[in-house]
Amino acid sequence: MQIIDYRSDTLTQPTDAMRQAMANAKVGDDVFDEDPTVHRLQELAAEKTGKEAALFVPSGTMGNLVSLLTHCQRGDEIILGRRSHIFINEVGGLSALGGIHPHPVANRDDGTLDMGEVKAAIRKDDVHYPPTRLICLENTHNYCGGYPLTVEYMQEVRSLADQNDLKIHLDGARLFNAAVALGVEPVALTRDADSIMLSLSKGLSAPAGSLICGPADWVARARKWRKMVGGGMRQVGILAAAGLEALNHHPKRLIEDHNNARELAQGLHKTPGIQINCDRVYTNILFFRLQHPDMGAEALERLLDDKGVRVLHMGDSWFRAVLHRHITNGMVKTTLDILREILK
Amino acid sequence: MQIIDYRSDTLTQPTDAMRQAMANAKVGDDVFDEDPTVHRLQELAAEKTGKEAALFVPSGTMGNLVSLLTHCQRGDEIILGRRSHIFINEVGGLSALGGIHPHPVANRDDGTLDMGEVKAAIRKDDVHYPPTRLICLENTHNYCGGYPLTVEYMQEVRSLADQNDLKIHLDGARLFNAAVALGVEPVALTRDADSIMLSLSKGLSAPAGSLICGPADWVARARKWRKMVGGGMRQVGILAAAGLEALNHHPKRLIEDHNNARELAQGLHKTPGIQINCDRVYTNILFFRLQHPDMGAEALERLLDDKGVRVLHMGDSWFRAVLHRHITNGMVKTTLDILREILK
Amino acid sequence: MQIIDYRSDTLTQPTDAMRQAMANAKVGDDVFDEDPTVHRLQELAAEKTGKEAALFVPSGTMGNLVSLLTHCQRGDEIILGRRSHIFINEVGGLSALGGIHPHPVANRDDGTLDMGEVKAAIRKDDVHYPPTRLICLENTHNYCGGYPLTVEYMQEVRSLADQNDLKIHLDGARLFNAAVALGVEPVALTRDADSIMLSLSKGLSAPAGSLICGPADWVARARKWRKMVGGGMRQVGILAAAGLEALNHHPKRLIEDHNNARELAQGLHKTPGIQINCDRVYTNILFFRLQHPDMGAEALERLLDDKGVRVLHMGDSWFRAVLHRHITNGMVKTTLDILREILK
Amino acid sequence: MQIIDYRSDTLTQPTDAMRQAMANAKVGDDVFDEDPTVHRLQELAAEKTGKEAALFVPSGTMGNLVSLLTHCQRGDEIILGRRSHIFINEVGGLSALGGIHPHPVANRDDGTLDMGEVKAAIRKDDVHYPPTRLICLENTHNYCGGYPLTVEYMQEVRSLADQNDLKIHLDGARLFNAAVALGVEPVALTRDADSIMLSLSKGLSAPAGSLICGPADWVARARKWRKMVGGGMRQVGILAAAGLEALNHHPKRLIEDHNNARELAQGLHKTPGIQINCDRVYTNILFFRLQHPDMGAEALERLLDDKGVRVLHMGDSWFRAVLHRHITNGMVKTTLDILREILK
Repeated sequence: MQIIDYRSDTLTQPTDAMRQAMANAKVGDDVFDEDPTVHRLQELAAEKTGKEAALFVPSGTMGNLVSLLTHCQRGDEIILGRRSHIFINEVGGLSALGGIHPHPVANRDDGTLDMGEVKAAIRKDDVHYPPTRLICLENTHNYCGGYPLTVEYMQEVRSLADQNDLKIHLDGARLFNAAVALGVEPVALTRDADSIMLSLSKGLSAPAGSLICGPADWVARARKWRKMVGGGMRQVGILAAAGLEALNHHPKRLIEDHNNARELAQGLHKTPGIQINCDRVYTNILFFRLQHPDMGAEALERLLDDKGVRVLHMGDSWFRAVLHRHITNGMVKTTLDILREILK
Repeated sequence: MQIIDYRSDTLTQPTDAMRQAMANAKVGDDVFDEDPTVHRLQELAAEKTGKEAALFVPSGTMGNLVSLLTHCQRGDEIILGRRSHIFINEVGGLSALGGIHPHPVANRDDGTLDMGEVKAAIRKDDVHYPPTRLICLENTHNYCGGYPLTVEYMQEVRSLADQNDLKIHLDGARLFNAAVALGVEPVALTRDADSIMLSLSKGLSAPAGSLICGPADWVARARKWRKMVGGGMRQVGILAAAGLEALNHHPKRLIEDHNNARELAQGLHKTPGIQINCDRVYTNILFFRLQHPDMGAEALERLLDDKGVRVLHMGDSWFRAVLHRHITNGMVKTTLDILREILK
Repeated sequence: MQIIDYRSDTLTQPTDAMRQAMANAKVGDDVFDEDPTVHRLQELAAEKTGKEAALFVPSGTMGNLVSLLTHCQRGDEIILGRRSHIFINEVGGLSALGGIHPHPVANRDDGTLDMGEVKAAIRKDDVHYPPTRLICLENTHNYCGGYPLTVEYMQEVRSLADQNDLKIHLDGARLFNAAVALGVEPVALTRDADSIMLSLSKGLSAPAGSLICGPADWVARARKWRKMVGGGMRQVGILAAAGLEALNHHPKRLIEDHNNARELAQGLHKTPGIQINCDRVYTNILFFRLQHPDMGAEALERLLDDKGVRVLHMGDSWFRAVLHRHITNGMVKTTLDILREILK
Repeated sequence: MQIIDYRSDTLTQPTDAMRQAMANAKVGDDVFDEDPTVHRLQELAAEKTGKEAALFVPSGTMGNLVSLLTHCQRGDEIILGRRSHIFINEVGGLSALGGIHPHPVANRDDGTLDMGEVKAAIRKDDVHYPPTRLICLENTHNYCGGYPLTVEYMQEVRSLADQNDLKIHLDGARLFNAAVALGVEPVALTRDADSIMLSLSKGLSAPAGSLICGPADWVARARKWRKMVGGGMRQVGILAAAGLEALNHHPKRLIEDHNNARELAQGLHKTPGIQINCDRVYTNILFFRLQHPDMGAEALERLLDDKGVRVLHMGDSWFRAVLHRHITNGMVKTTLDILREILK
C-alpha cells in the first residue's frame, strides 16, 4: 500500500545527492572548529540571512534554546506568541534550563502578535518585574496554519523593539517557505531580527540540523552555550554536507509543496463534512476540521490510516496536514478520493 | 497635612498590642525548630485553613515561591492567571529560580480562570510538552479588583484538578478579606486547595510575615526549600507574636475596610470625570479610571499627592485604591471632597 | 536544671534593650523603601564596612545567596572553600536556584584558601569551561574553628583577584568576632572585598537579620534578587531596630566570648579523654575530640545533655562548642566539672 | 608534511565502511521514534552494556547532561571526581542548566575516588544539606592518564551506593578502551552502574554520537530531557549507521592504540628532558612533562607543530598525547625521532 504521510515535513528523507555528499564530505573536528564542510555551511547560512556569522546545531529546538540562552540571562523575560512553537512545543526548556520567564501574548490567526499587546507586555523597571529582553517571532508560523510574516510586519516589530531596547529572535524553522510564498529573498525577512534559527530538515529535506545566525560576537558566545547543552559534535561535516545540498538546491522546490497544499485545501473545501478556510493556506501547512454527523475525529484518523493516509489529529475535530517532497500532486488527488470515499 | 495613603494595605503599621506582644514574646531558634511562639502561630494557621501543618515565611512572595518549589520540579508547568500576582509581580522567580514553566490563561474580571481555557492548557503526556503539575488561584484577586473566589468555584477547580491528577495552590494573601466578604469561614475557601499562602501583613496589620499551609509531609519538604532561599530566621517568634495578634483579632475588622471601599466607590461613581464599576467592589481594593477632558492621569496623581492623598497610578488612566486600618470613614469623605475640588 | 547551650551562637535571645527598641521602632513599608529604621541600619552597616550601601536581608543564607545571584549569572563559576558555610551548609542554593557552578578548593586549618590552588582553579577562556567570576571567603571561618582571616591575607587574595578580573565576596557572618580577635576595625577586613554579608543574630544577639554591603549599583541590583527570593519584608524596621542595638553595642562584648572559649579550651585540654588544639582557639568557636577507651561520642553527647550541657556532635568523635552571651565564665567552669565527672 | 595529531582521539575520521553505511542507511524520523537504524544501534548498545534500553545522543557531553537531568532534580547533589570530565570540561552544565550541586572529591592517580572521601561526602538528611543522589565515575579516566577502573572497584562503589540508596552514573566515553585494556567484556564494567554514557566517536572512529544506557523507564524519561536540550534529531539513522560500524568492528582494534601508547611512553622515558611514568600508561592516553634546562613548554609545542606533530599542552610543563586510528606504529617512531632532534 502506498503511504501518503502528511504528519510533518520533518519526515523527508535525504536525497541521493545528499547521501552522495555525506559519503564524500571532507570533515574535521568541529568542537576544535576544524571542520571545513561545517565552515562552508555556516558561511552560506550567514550569507543567506545577511548576518555576520552562523552556527550549526543538531536541531531546531536546540537552535532556539541556545539563542535564548545567549540573549537572556537567568531572570530575564521574553515576549512570545501563545501559539508559538517555542512556548508550546519545546518542553519549556527556556524556563527549565535557562531560568527565563515567558510572557506569552496572543497570536492572531496570521501568526503575528498584536503590537498593542506586545507593548503592554513590555515591563518598566521595577523591583517586582523581570526585565523584558527579547521578542520572539516565528516565520512561517506552524500553529497559525503556516502563515508567513511579512517584511512590513518585521519592520514594525523592529521599530517597537528599538524603542524599548529589546532584541528580536526569529524562529525561522520554515523561513524559506515564507520567502518563497512571499516572493522575497530570505534576507528581507531576517534583516530586522537580531538572531535567526533556520532548519535544514523539514521542507529542505536534510536528515538533521539547523543553524543560528547573528552578529559574530553573539555567535561566539552561542558556541559556549551549544557546548554546554551538548550540541558540539565532532565530524559533523557529514550532516553539514547534506545541509549544503539542502540550502543550495531545495528552497526553490518548496513552491511545489505550496501548490499542492492549495490544491489539497480546495479539494477539502469541496468535500462534505470537512471545514477549511482556503484563504488561509499560504504555504505547506493546512489545518482542517471534521464536521460530520456520524463520524468522530478518531474514527476518521483510523480509517485514513487504514488506507495509507496519515494526518496529525490535533485534538477535538482538528487535523493538520503538511505537504513536502514525498507528496506528489497525484498523491493529493488520491488523498481526496480516499477521503471522499470514507466520508460518503 | 493629613496623609491618606491608598497605595496598599501593606502600609499598615503594627498595633500597640502587636508591639507589646513582640516586646514580650517567648522566642527560640526557629532554624532548630525551637521557637514556641512560631509553633503557636503555625498551629493556629493550620487550624484556620484546615490543614495538617503550616510554616512561617518572611513574605508572601516567598510563601508562593516555596510552595511552587515544593510542588514542582525543574521542567514542570503550572497553570495560573494572566493577571495573577505570581505571574505579574513576583519577578518571575518561579522560572528564574525554580525552572518552572508558567502557562498563563485569562483571568475573567471576577478573578476566576475560565475552566475551558484551563482544560485546554493541561498537557497530555508527550515528549514535546512540559508536564502540568499545578493550578494556581488567587483569593481575593488583587488585579481583578479584589474580587473573592467563591466556595463553589473552588470546588469546580478541585474537580477538574482531581480528574487530571493536578495540585492546587491558593495565593491567599488576602484570604480573610474573601472570607469576610463572602460571609464564610476561611476553611470553606481553603478546603479544596492543596496548599495555601496567607499574609499577616496587609489588612491584618502585622509588620511582616506570611504562612504556607498544607499536608504535614509537604510542609516538611517546604522547610528545606525555605532554608535554601534564605527564609529560615532565628528568634523570629518576635514577628510571630505580632502574627498571632493579627490572626486572632484582625480578620473581623476587615469588614470596615470593605464598607469604606464601597462608600469610596459610590462617591467616585458620582464624581464627574471618574469612571468606576461599583458592582465590582467587593472587598478593600478598587480600580477607577480618569475620564476627564482637561486632565491627565499623571497630573491627577500629583495634585492628589499635594493634598496628602496617595493612590497607585497603574498606567494609562487607571488608578488603584486600597482601603485599610489607617483609612477611616471620615478620610474617605475627605478624599472625595479633595478629588471633587481638583476635578471641578 | 541550668541549661548551658553551646550548640550555636544563633541561640542568643534579644536583650531587653532590643525588645524595647523593637516595641518603639518607627517603621514604614520597606518594599516601598520607606522604613526609616531600616534606612538607619543600612547606613550604619555601610559605614562599618566602608561600602557605599547596604541591604537588610532576613538571614545570612539569603545574604550570601543574593550576593552570589547579583555577582554571577547562570553558568558562571565561583571558587570557594571546601569547608565553607556556603558550600557545606546553604543547601546548594547557588546551584539549585542560581545555576552557579561551585569550584571548591581546600581550606587550610586557619580558614584560608591556598593561593596556589585558587590560581589553578581560575579558568582560562575556553568553550569547555564555565567562566570564573568570584572568590568567596569566610571570616571568621566556622568549620575551621572560628579562625579569623587576617588583613594581610585579604590583601593577598585581592591582588590575585585583580590580576584575574575577579570579584571577592566575604561571608562575614562573624565578621565582628574576627575584628575583635585581631584587634582591628571591621573596615580593615572588608576593604578588600567587593561585597560582604554580616549577621546581626549570632554573637550580636539580634533576633534575626543580616546585611549585605557593597557598591551602590550592586546593592540596587541585589534589591531585585532579594525581592525575587522573597526577602522583601514590610515593616521590618521592627527587626532593624534590634539590629541597630546589635551593631552599635554588641561587637565590643564579643571579647568575653573569646576569653571564655579560651578558658574552656584550656580546661578541655587538661581533661583526660579529650583532645583539643588550644593554639587554634581564637574566637568563640572550638572543636574538640573524644578519645576515650570506654565511651562513644553518642554516649557522651547524651550524658552531657542529661546534665544540661548541650554541644553539637559533628560526626565521628568530633564536637563543636560555641560561646555566646548566655554562657558565663561560671558556666564554663561548671561545664568542665560536669565533663570531668562524666569521663572519670 | 605528514601531520601526526595526538591532541585527541576525537579527531578520528569515519572509515570508508562508515561512509558507505551512512550513504545507504535506512532512516526515519527519530523524534517520532521511527528510525530503524537508530533502533538497531540502541538495541546493540543496550546489549553491550547489559541494560534494558539505550538512547542515541549527539555528544558525550549531552549524554552525561541528560543522564544527570534524569537522575537528579533541582537541588540534588552528586559526588564526582575533582578531575572528572563532567566537573572540569562540560561547562558546568549540571549546575547552570540542571540546578544540581556538584560535590567533588579527590581522584586518585588511577582515576578512582577514595571510598573514605566518598563516604564522608554523602549527606545525612538535614535542612542545611542538599540530598546526595548520585555517584559519577569515569572509565577510562581521561585526566588520570586514561587509567581503567576495574571490575572490583565498580563492585566496591556499588556496595557503598546501595548502602546509601544512591545511583551510579558511569561516564564511559572510553568504556571500550577500559574493557580491552582489562581483558574483560564491557558488561563486566557496566553491570554495577545504573546508567552509562558511551561514545561512538573518539577511538571508535564514528563521526559523532554517543549513547546512554539504563533501565527502560529511565531511558523513557531521558528521552524527554534529550528533547528539551535539543538532542532530538530527525533522520539521524545516518549517524547511527556509522555508529553501528563503530560498535561492531572498532573496539577490538583499540589494542593497537594501547600498544602504540606504551611504545611511545617507553620512547619518551628514554628521551632526555622528558619525564613520564610508564607504569601509568594503560590505554591510549598518556601525560608527559618537559624538564629541560633551556626549553619552555610553549617553545616545545611550537617546534613540534612545525614538524607536524601536535600535542595538547595542558598548562605548566605538562602535555597530553592520545593515540588513535590515524597514528601508526611508524608515526610513533617518527615522533620520537623528531622530539629527540628538537631536545638534543
